[in-house]
Amino acid sequence: MDNFAKFCKMTVFERAGDRVIVLLSSGNLAGTQAVVSVLTQRCADGASAANLLGARTMFDVVSLVADAMRDIEKRDAGYLAENNIRFNASFIVGGQIRGEPIRLFRIYAEGNFIEAGIDTPFFQTGETKYGKPILDRVLTQHTPLADATKCVLVSFDSTMRSNLSVGMPIDLICYERDSLEVQWRRRFDEGDPYFTTLSQQWGEGVRQVFRDLPDLRW
Amino acid sequence: MDNFAKFCKMTVFERAGDRVIVLLSSGNLAGTQAVVSVLTQRCADGASAANLLGARTMFDVVSLVADAMRDIEKRDAGYLAENNIRFNASFIVGGQIRGEPIRLFRIYAEGNFIEAGIDTPFFQTGETKYGKPILDRVLTQHTPLADATKCVLVSFDSTMRSNLSVGMPIDLICYERDSLEVQWRRRFDEGDPYFTTLSQQWGEGVRQVFRDLPDLRW
Repeated sequence: MDNFAKFCKMTVFERAGDRVIVLLSSGNLAGTQAVVSVLTQRCADGASAANLLGARTMFDVVSLVADAMRDIEKRDAGYLAENNIRFNASFIVGGQIRGEPIRLFRIYAEGNFIEAGIDTPFFQTGETKYGKPILDRVLTQHTPLADATKCVLVSFDSTMRSNLSVGMPIDLICYERDSLEVQWRRRFDEGDPYFTTLSQQWGEGVRQVFRDLPDLRW
Repeated sequence: MDNFAKFCKMTVFERAGDRVIVLLSSGNLAGTQAVVSVLTQRCADGASAANLLGARTMFDVVSLVADAMRDIEKRDAGYLAENNIRFNASFIVGGQIRGEPIRLFRIYAEGNFIEAGIDTPFFQTGETKYGKPILDRVLTQHTPLADATKCVLVSFDSTMRSNLSVGMPIDLICYERDSLEVQWRRRFDEGDPYFTTLSQQWGEGVRQVFRDLPDLRW
């Protein structure tokens, strides 16, 4: 906590009209950065079979991300283990490739992964618990994009209030199905007027709801 | 998760007019039950120097609870370690002994402990994170007992919604400073009318606050 810095946890692989792939990372920063660098290099090497921009499906994309995680893990884990450090990088991978529906995956540190579905329309990674109750209350497969956007920000607000090591900026992408390009992207920095308003209005509203609750009659 | 049962996590050592001591436990059930049994036996053996009902201060009480934890840990930890199980019992100990102010402690699994103060007026144990944001928003040293009571119940409601392994009943004691006896104790079981009302009104209120938040203008 005394050696902190900001790092962007979001990486976009995009070929407008063909695919949008978004990676969100959590865990060991050296590990997740190495994974992203490997994936980026493999994209630059267009011929590579491990090129995310050439993968046929989102399932193949996620498998390639998992492969890169395991490559880095193989390289580093032994050295980390000597100091009792676990290689604990993990990723959320979401996006769409032309011809497929939009898909969302969560890759565990071990490289195996799950896909979101109708019953579980969202994933979180990193410091997940403080911000989960509001997501559980609001998000369903029918939630409009505008509401989902607000909900994610309120969730981050709760997390940042309860865990000082989580802080601004928040990098947000809102991807609209079948657009096949990133139309809405926004970074919220410390003091962002919209986020500040949201945070204050939410806090005051919640405290008012609390005040209106009936007292317990023993 | 397929072998679940209910166990009371709250134990009261009381001598009306002299002291009220409340233990809340979390972690390895065999461990916490053994600690409580040892403490109860030592109270029954009135002459024991490790008798909570004879301890001079709350600090001494907490030290005795920590000693009992370490006794059990010494007995079991080796056998648990053979199966890679950690002895992870921990306790919150609160109460008052005549002549002292009311005091509140949190004992870690290792047996060391911290005391609550003006800046940190509450402790949680067990599945703490889902329910913490509302406590962080509402509780201060000036919060009236009635509000603190509501707040704890709303916090448990959030936790139970997000972690299926946390469930009713909730055992609640509300201790009024200098009363030196337990006047208000209540168990909330599945379907409790007050808790159900609280949960519904809270959920609807929070969703309404959410609906009233301004949309993001990209």
